Amino acid sequence: MQSHQPDYFTTYTHLKLSRDEKGVLVAEFHNNGGPYIMNAAGHTEFVDAFNRIGQDRDNKIVIMTGASGSFIGDVDWATFGDVTDPIIWSRIHDEGLQVLENICNIRVPVIAAIEGKAHIHSDYALIASVIVAAETATFEDVGHFAVGVTPGDGIFTTWSYRAGPGRAEAFLLNPHPLPAQKAHEWGVVAEVVPHGKALTRARELANLYLKAPEVTRRNVRIHFIQPLKERIIKEVGYGLSLEGASSLDLAKSKRSKK
Amino acid sequence: MQSHQPDYFTTYTHLKLSRDEKGVLVAEFHNNGGPYIMNAAGHTEFVDAFNRIGQDRDNKIVIMTGASGSFIGDVDWATFGDVTDPIIWSRIHDEGLQVLENICNIRVPVIAAIEGKAHIHSDYALIASVIVAAETATFEDVGHFAVGVTPGDGIFTTWSYRAGPGRAEAFLLNPHPLPAQKAHEWGVVAEVVPHGKALTRARELANLYLKAPEVTRRNVRIHFIQPLKERIIKEVGYGLSLEGASSLDLAKSKRSKK
Amino acid sequence: MQSHQPDYFTTYTHLKLSRDEKGVLVAEFHNNGGPYIMNAAGHTEFVDAFNRIGQDRDNKIVIMTGASGSFIGDVDWATFGDVTDPIIWSRIHDEGLQVLENICNIRVPVIAAIEGKAHIHSDYALIASVIVAAETATFEDVGHFAVGVTPGDGIFTTWSYRAGPGRAEAFLLNPHPLPAQKAHEWGVVAEVVPHGKALTRARELANLYLKAPEVTRRNVRIHFIQPLKERIIKEVGYGLSLEGASSLDLAKSKRSKK
Amino acid sequence: MQSHQPDYFTTYTHLKLSRDEKGVLVAEFHNNGGPYIMNAAGHTEFVDAFNRIGQDRDNKIVIMTGASGSFIGDVDWATFGDVTDPIIWSRIHDEGLQVLENICNIRVPVIAAIEGKAHIHSDYALIASVIVAAETATFEDVGHFAVGVTPGDGIFTTWSYRAGPGRAEAFLLNPHPLPAQKAHEWGVVAEVVPHGKALTRARELANLYLKAPEVTRRNVRIHFIQPLKERIIKEVGYGLSLEGASSLDLAKSKRSKK
Amino acid sequence: MQSHQPDYFTTYTHLKLSRDEKGVLVAEFHNNGGPYIMNAAGHTEFVDAFNRIGQDRDNKIVIMTGASGSFIGDVDWATFGDVTDPIIWSRIHDEGLQVLENICNIRVPVIAAIEGKAHIHSDYALIASVIVAAETATFEDVGHFAVGVTPGDGIFTTWSYRAGPGRAEAFLLNPHPLPAQKAHEWGVVAEVVPHGKALTRARELANLYLKAPEVTRRNVRIHFIQPLKERIIKEVGYGLSLEGASSLDLAKSKRSKK
Amino acid sequence: MQSHQPDYFTTYTHLKLSRDEKGVLVAEFHNNGGPYIMNAAGHTEFVDAFNRIGQDRDNKIVIMTGASGSFIGDVDWATFGDVTDPIIWSRIHDEGLQVLENICNIRVPVIAAIEGKAHIHSDYALIASVIVAAETATFEDVGHFAVGVTPGDGIFTTWSYRAGPGRAEAFLLNPHPLPAQKAHEWGVVAEVVPHGKALTRARELANLYLKAPEVTRRNVRIHFIQPLKERIIKEVGYGLSLEGASSLDLAKSKRSKK
Repeated sequence: MQSHQPDYFTTYTHLKLSRDEKGVLVAEFHNNGGPYIMNAAGHTEFVDAFNRIGQDRDNKIVIMTGASGSFIGDVDWATFGDVTDPIIWSRIHDEGLQVLENICNIRVPVIAAIEGKAHIHSDYALIASVIVAAETATFEDVGHFAVGVTPGDGIFTTWSYRAGPGRAEAFLLNPHPLPAQKAHEWGVVAEVVPHGKALTRARELANLYLKAPEVTRRNVRIHFIQPLKERIIKEVGYGLSLEGASSLDLAKSKRSKK
Repeated sequence: MQSHQPDYFTTYTHLKLSRDEKGVLVAEFHNNGGPYIMNAAGHTEFVDAFNRIGQDRDNKIVIMTGASGSFIGDVDWATFGDVTDPIIWSRIHDEGLQVLENICNIRVPVIAAIEGKAHIHSDYALIASVIVAAETATFEDVGHFAVGVTPGDGIFTTWSYRAGPGRAEAFLLNPHPLPAQKAHEWGVVAEVVPHGKALTRARELANLYLKAPEVTRRNVRIHFIQPLKERIIKEVGYGLSLEGASSLDLAKSKRSKK
Repeated sequence: MQSHQPDYFTTYTHLKLSRDEKGVLVAEFHNNGGPYIMNAAGHTEFVDAFNRIGQDRDNKIVIMTGASGSFIGDVDWATFGDVTDPIIWSRIHDEGLQVLENICNIRVPVIAAIEGKAHIHSDYALIASVIVAAETATFEDVGHFAVGVTPGDGIFTTWSYRAGPGRAEAFLLNPHPLPAQKAHEWGVVAEVVPHGKALTRARELANLYLKAPEVTRRNVRIHFIQPLKERIIKEVGYGLSLEGASSLDLAKSKRSKK
Repeated sequence: MQSHQPDYFTTYTHLKLSRDEKGVLVAEFHNNGGPYIMNAAGHTEFVDAFNRIGQDRDNKIVIMTGASGSFIGDVDWATFGDVTDPIIWSRIHDEGLQVLENICNIRVPVIAAIEGKAHIHSDYALIASVIVAAETATFEDVGHFAVGVTPGDGIFTTWSYRAGPGRAEAFLLNPHPLPAQKAHEWGVVAEVVPHGKALTRARELANLYLKAPEVTRRNVRIHFIQPLKERIIKEVGYGLSLEGASSLDLAKSKRSKK
Repeated sequence: MQSHQPDYFTTYTHLKLSRDEKGVLVAEFHNNGGPYIMNAAGHTEFVDAFNRIGQDRDNKIVIMTGASGSFIGDVDWATFGDVTDPIIWSRIHDEGLQVLENICNIRVPVIAAIEGKAHIHSDYALIASVIVAAETATFEDVGHFAVGVTPGDGIFTTWSYRAGPGRAEAFLLNPHPLPAQKAHEWGVVAEVVPHGKALTRARELANLYLKAPEVTRRNVRIHFIQPLKERIIKEVGYGLSLEGASSLDLAKSKRSKK
Repeated sequence: MQSHQPDYFTTYTHLKLSRDEKGVLVAEFHNNGGPYIMNAAGHTEFVDAFNRIGQDRDNKIVIMTGASGSFIGDVDWATFGDVTDPIIWSRIHDEGLQVLENICNIRVPVIAAIEGKAHIHSDYALIASVIVAAETATFEDVGHFAVGVTPGDGIFTTWSYRAGPGRAEAFLLNPHPLPAQKAHEWGVVAEVVPHGKALTRARELANLYLKAPEVTRRNVRIHFIQPLKERIIKEVGYGLSLEGASSLDLAKSKRSKK
């Protein structure tokens, strides 16, 4: 049915897109095919990528995953440039909120398949309807409080929504790797599978969901994501502004220490 | 005190009502005294029944339960008629939201006593303040995604509210029986009791709650139910509309397969 | 830096305040240095105390704890006077909401260190970002339904927020001591530590958080507390009004029994 | 079509119901056919009446009006009994919110036709989609601040919603008759008509709306009322509790003056 | 600065895009350069167009206007195909909400310049920060209740937000042309200008706003649009579903009349 | 009754406090008794002042006004120091939100009496229940967009709430003096009085409101302010963060122009 491949499939440097004949799209974060480390180029292109994915009605199910046994392992803050420049932070603010809205607006079931480290932007995964994680996968936030920055980009909103606020606050204030099994006990991960099997299981679930007719599949996503979408829209813009001011103070305090 | 029995007690075919001298009302879903299978007649009359129950200030505590070792085991969609007729779906939409509002508006503590299958409209039970379930009881949603329909009638809103959204989404997209003990671990079921003892324990709790004076009992319910009531009113009307469109597509896809 | 001690440190009879050289403030509920039993004098002065704590930018981290191996063990309702007098309840209503808002408005990380009984106003502790509890600590609400009063003062809102509403409703309708470990499983308590070690561990966490720069620390609190602050402001005023009417009925029913 | 008259049409002492062959229901507040003065009996029966009206799918349009050239002119507080009795106020609270919810849940267009005084519970009229008022009609709230009671029963919520909060606050704190023309300028009244012509014009609008098919008519009401319904559910329960405490203080202050 | 013209400028059949050297983008609805009549092709492409406009940080101010002395004068429902097909309505639903979100997400000041008829999707204009209208311009909704369909696509949400709900409900239930001056009195139109001068005045305002620095301009839009964006996201998806069911009933009632 | 004057009456440099024997407190913004120009010292002390005013139950009515025929005429941004320092902006952010919350939490009717220029922080006045303005008074926002800064500190939230968002957006994007009469037509000003008579009329209203008993007076304020308080708490923190980033960009663009 989707024999031709849309042009946006080959547009992105850090998101590999492929779709099978049934319409199951796999979106894979990567860097030259290897594990992805968050960078500014990806931050910008994911906004467009998830928008295009969401608008393309040939996508029947979307699976989000990483490459080479990792989800997103770390962040390369340096690529973002001088985050104390208000123009640069304004871009981060706008993209940071928009990418989450665009994932919310993928109006078919979204499954996250997690191997290895989901240590940056695990919030992307938590906007999926269902998370399948390998038993060896771990969750952490290495990009915020651990380096002196307020975790305001959606990481709190999504973890608070799925794990409960008590767990989310402690998890973000004192970052340590959280095993997949623990994330399952917290209600965040739906299924824990053997190492290396996350994507396989996600494909099985996708095939199961495909039994439902088109509008059923679209509407179940619309219904389920609405409360989280509303929270993201209420909380994350402000969160990113608070994070921006925090980055400014971090830079200032580093300068003053020199 | 309530020696006379109000006339609405004998009005409903699928809800048996009885009240003891202390004002503990037991509302029992049934079909000719046996296990209840959801049908259109019940869907309509429960709207009125729960409204009357809520307005009758002689009801001091309300226990909701099923008959013959079941809560609600399945749904007989055929009784609802042609759900692709917009007039018929309009009725389902209106009743479907109104019945949940009416359970919310029972302004005394509501206890659900679950034996056997709570496989349809377990959302009714999740609007209770406290759920007591037999160890053999199971929860599932056999009437929506399993048969190709969007679960939009309150089942997501209530499970998301009480079990957390991560669990609710996976539970509804891939329906399997959830044992009472698991539902207890998820925070949905307050107490797991031996097989056949759910109603007995519910009555014990009712007697305990009766020690509080009238306004205390009424106001605790008002206070506790408010956040869920607000979510139901925000989410379920839209959910039912999404479910209606989904049913239409299901019917169309069935026709096209023939 | 904070060599001088602000005058408000010595203002309160039931809240002992001390601050180390790094700006970690310890606020300790007590009665003459011993375990604190909630009373009207404390209810009034905590409003001012937490406001002053929140406004004082020399407080870098706030730890809330009790004295002599207890958090708050009970309430002395008699000190509140005639709660059926609408003027007196109006004061309780206003103070009761304001104190919670003022704790929310402490714009640095707040840690609760719990030993012994958190049997009254554990909601104060649940507004902290992180709760550290001794393994021997217990949570309960002995001041509301157990004595015939609607639990409307924030106890439901905070427990519902952190433990989930199903657990909160059962917990408050049938009060029993909840061990710290259970509260940990529910996601309320972040860390369970040996008996007598709660404050020590809270100080360790405080020192960890102090590594983040000023604005990061302030903004993380602002971001994390926002959803709970909004719920408190939406729910607790009404809750306190419902509790007031309940108290009135309790008094009336006691008179009528005489 | 609706040749037979449902039994609830003749149930209410203070609400006369009649329906034409097209399904336009006219609900008329009255006292023995004359102008209605709000009393406890009406307060109770309107809850049931508007629920029945809303559930009856043979009602295609609902017109709410008064009798003998008045809407509701005053209130007879004495009929409500001892409002300082918490049980009695509990009933007023529950009914007061429920009646507004029930008017919101009339899922066909509702038109208010106002002649003379809408000086009590004009909030009933403001839940209509459209208000037609005679040029001689006036709006006021004579039952709250004018007699020393907090206007918490929906009068502020509805006026704030339709006239804006600045106007509503001043209107309720310093009650004076507001002419229909002024209410029109404020956006509250849709059409001002000659004296005695409000019902006539309401019937014309009803006939216009009847051109739309059933589901269109039902769904336009559902869509339009949702924001006000949500505000009522958020605000009016608390408002009524605040009004109850206010009544208690009024009674106390009257006693102390004696 | 923006000497090169981005490729999306020439992508759309019904939206002409041009930008001056200061970054003021004019987006003009049209049909072959003449007045635009809403059609399915435009409905689809506006989603993408406003997204691209919003993401392009070279747009410093956005002016939305129509062509040949009209804004959008009517709708050609026939181009949308069989709106009773659930797949087709699903597309209308998804596009209908997404286009409004995308206009909200244009994070620079948006000005609407209205000449002639804004008789379809005036909600697009009401998401602008400021509306300038020619004295001869009129507002109306000719595509919903006037033809038997529920106005659920944002037209109520935006008019209720800017004109107040009382006016919006009457305006949509009994559609008539509303002169620009009246819309100004209602607070919807900021400035009324002579016939043919709307775009000229919009450009003057744009130049005025350009005096503010980049982040100021972006952030003022973000701040001002947030409450309306939240309302749109809460209300319009449901509204469109209600409208879809209404369309189905309209088609059915037309068939039954034949 | 309040023969003694509380100590906080003499604490503030820019807010003169006086109270008559009936408990009517007049709070007067001033600078050495003359017209007040907003400065950093006032910004800080008003937080404490309005908190103290709100907590003091001897205040029965609060009137907020200016001195020497002005409300607040301008702002002296220089006194705030280097607003690009994140620590300094953090203070402005925290104070800016807290002062509005504290005015909301004055739980007795608040009346604003406006003479002359309300050109800075007219949001303070718009949190009053009722505004009385001299016919010569004018409203404007000279401190934000006019000088290149995002108006995020509550000025939009309050004007949008009381005047409607369409008027508020245009008013703030293109600042000009708005006469009191126009603000009256917009629903913001309750009463326009002759030049010099605002305070006199405010006192008359205060005496009128004093006829209501204590709890009635307190509860009417609690009920009326709740929706605005919720909006302030949802919107203004973010708004101030957006304003902070805007100030940073303004400073940067000024530097780059040199």
